[in-house]
Amino acid sequence: MNAVELIERKRDGQRLTDEEIRWLIQAYTDGTVTDYQMSAMAMAIFFNGLDPEELSAWTGAMLNSGEVLDLSDVDKPKIDKHSTGGVGDKVSIPLAPLVASCGVAVPMMSGRGLGHTGGTLDKLESIPGFTAQLDPQTFHDILGRVGVVMAGQSETLVPADRKLYALRDASGTVPSIPLIASSIMSKKLAEDLDGLVLDVKVGEGAFMPDMERARQLAETMIGIGKSHGLAVTALITDMSQPLGRMVGNANEIAESIDVLAGEGPEDLVEITVGLAVEMLTLAGIDDPEQTVARALSSGAALEKFEEMVEAQGGDPRVVSDRTLLPSAPETTPIEAESGGYVAECDARSIGLAAMRLGAGRERKEDDIDPGVGIEVRKKIGDQVSPGDVLAVLRHRPGDISEAMARASSAWVISEQPTKRPQLIHERIEA
Amino acid sequence: MNAVELIERKRDGQRLTDEEIRWLIQAYTDGTVTDYQMSAMAMAIFFNGLDPEELSAWTGAMLNSGEVLDLSDVDKPKIDKHSTGGVGDKVSIPLAPLVASCGVAVPMMSGRGLGHTGGTLDKLESIPGFTAQLDPQTFHDILGRVGVVMAGQSETLVPADRKLYALRDASGTVPSIPLIASSIMSKKLAEDLDGLVLDVKVGEGAFMPDMERARQLAETMIGIGKSHGLAVTALITDMSQPLGRMVGNANEIAESIDVLAGEGPEDLVEITVGLAVEMLTLAGIDDPEQTVARALSSGAALEKFEEMVEAQGGDPRVVSDRTLLPSAPETTPIEAESGGYVAECDARSIGLAAMRLGAGRERKEDDIDPGVGIEVRKKIGDQVSPGDVLAVLRHRPGDISEAMARASSAWVISEQPTKRPQLIHERIEA
Repeated sequence: MNAVELIERKRDGQRLTDEEIRWLIQAYTDGTVTDYQMSAMAMAIFFNGLDPEELSAWTGAMLNSGEVLDLSDVDKPKIDKHSTGGVGDKVSIPLAPLVASCGVAVPMMSGRGLGHTGGTLDKLESIPGFTAQLDPQTFHDILGRVGVVMAGQSETLVPADRKLYALRDASGTVPSIPLIASSIMSKKLAEDLDGLVLDVKVGEGAFMPDMERARQLAETMIGIGKSHGLAVTALITDMSQPLGRMVGNANEIAESIDVLAGEGPEDLVEITVGLAVEMLTLAGIDDPEQTVARALSSGAALEKFEEMVEAQGGDPRVVSDRTLLPSAPETTPIEAESGGYVAECDARSIGLAAMRLGAGRERKEDDIDPGVGIEVRKKIGDQVSPGDVLAVLRHRPGDISEAMARASSAWVISEQPTKRPQLIHERIEA
Repeated sequence: MNAVELIERKRDGQRLTDEEIRWLIQAYTDGTVTDYQMSAMAMAIFFNGLDPEELSAWTGAMLNSGEVLDLSDVDKPKIDKHSTGGVGDKVSIPLAPLVASCGVAVPMMSGRGLGHTGGTLDKLESIPGFTAQLDPQTFHDILGRVGVVMAGQSETLVPADRKLYALRDASGTVPSIPLIASSIMSKKLAEDLDGLVLDVKVGEGAFMPDMERARQLAETMIGIGKSHGLAVTALITDMSQPLGRMVGNANEIAESIDVLAGEGPEDLVEITVGLAVEMLTLAGIDDPEQTVARALSSGAALEKFEEMVEAQGGDPRVVSDRTLLPSAPETTPIEAESGGYVAECDARSIGLAAMRLGAGRERKEDDIDPGVGIEVRKKIGDQVSPGDVLAVLRHRPGDISEAMARASSAWVISEQPTKRPQLIHERIEA
């Protein structure tokens, strides 16, 4: 087979056969097909797409480019959640132990932050001692013993995606729904799951700025799941403003513990519980709402979190002693200049401001500072008076004017009362 | 500046500034921008194009990526011709000396063959001793002394195009009108010309299969010429069937000599003279038709050809003794199975058959055999009887069944009389 011919066909709007797609992905993984051919192919796919059959073959070929986990000896239903990412989106951290405490195995593979969005692994690693890089055996062991494990993806899983994802990032071919969907789904299919819940974020702080694209992405992933025998449910949730109050790393761990302790902010709790119910539903657990509520009120979920932290080398005492979490020494408030109602609290600006403070990465190779971040005190719908604190920046000594300017630009105060945005816009199932 | 950002902008249908384009081409030439970024950009340009201003900047940036010839001491108007290439298209070979014999300097830089189309340099090199690789000084000297020189492009000219052309070829991004037009024009602008005539071929054997695309390419190149102060005239000419009777290398040299000796096939003579008249017109020479006719009938054009061949190390005796040209020992005819009129004589099939015989290259690194080829005896409009020879394959001993099958498929015989295609479809000037 010939890469140029396949690129030309896709470029000219024709379809590729299963066999051609398998050859292409395999040849790209082993280097026979070059990066410059694959980036041209990715751009052709950006314009001409992949139909459902092509997409199923593409995802399957990615999946088969490396190892696939075998978790068949774990005798519970294995359910994971994937979020397309947002600002203040720490949902995975309370969610995974909460669901595990209800008798579901949660083998969660997460990523690191880039740009305005943080990463679950970065947040978890702000817990002293916690390690998010586990070899497949340890991952498997902890899952079997604790029922939940949260780690980065092993390099042996889906190597084609690892290579293609880096290439897309460097060649301007990221925002293609078939490429996004197959990237996510190939990794999730490699986890040997019984079910997957997708949290597709929509809004200015999300990857998908509008409902139509978010719905299209959700449906595409559900379709891939279906063609590979994986049950997938998707919630499309709001990312017009940060989720919860905390944006950063250690501060998001603290807020996650609040959720497990029954003290979390309303929006974060609603999304966490909503996703937990979906995961339990896929696991076939009766009365999921009640089961989730009991796991929270009984302290079982929080206990599961401590157990998981300990299993992954972290200090479980952070649950009762927040001073064990890193925290930058200085705080600077952002105050409202005028009174009224919060009309906008732009997630993207706040995410970028947090990144400037050091909570996120501008480039993949950047280090992050776990102790800095932003506490958002006024959100859409809240009434404010002039001088009220809209947010507090936690930071290291030095010039933070750029972060302040970015963050301050997030708020728009209106004279008319405003409404809190709906949190869960839509639920889609196979 | 950032390559990914520029790719994303072009991908999303936005325009690039002059400065961005200059940076991109320079950074690609020096390796800061990678091949995989440039192939993604090329694919984005395939889909979203370049507007005239972008295209002028793009071509200028390519031009300035390397040396530019300085032929200011040549005290004649300097005019070149470029053909988009076809089957049996040896026009440059009689044309350049013909025009030079009329007092115009012709610094002609040509290419090699690939796929179904042959290359002027390959054909010339079938003349014993002829060298088509000249250093810039020798190129310049021969032009000054003889008034015509035909050679490959020096590696120091337009290195960005050299790199980008190879990349496009390997990444399925060749057939983009702005990329084709800027590639051709950057090379022609580097030749320090006073005028350029374009022979844009249209038809099954050409790069541009339909009139609309051919016209668009011609107009795009004329526009680039205008923005860079170069006068350009284009003829759109027929490539539904091979030009002349000979397809190969040495046999095309023999046919080129026929043209200069006043014995060439009608269609080849018409195109050659038509292009010569356009070149003389751009050179400001009075009564170009008469001047060209005189140069042919007086033998001046043929003499100029001998002079050029000798200056480039070739044996000028090929003009009077065709046996000095390489020739494969075997011939096999293709005979008409039915009688009627030739309705099709597909250039592409014949070109591919000649390639299979060894006259052309399937891959860039292939060697060619100058002595093999195809003599086309019946062309569109000709009447044939069953058993008439449609063509003769000249080849080495061995299996030629694949070439025979390819070549035979070129002819369609109709019961109704057919008409010769119009040769010059359209003339476009700035």
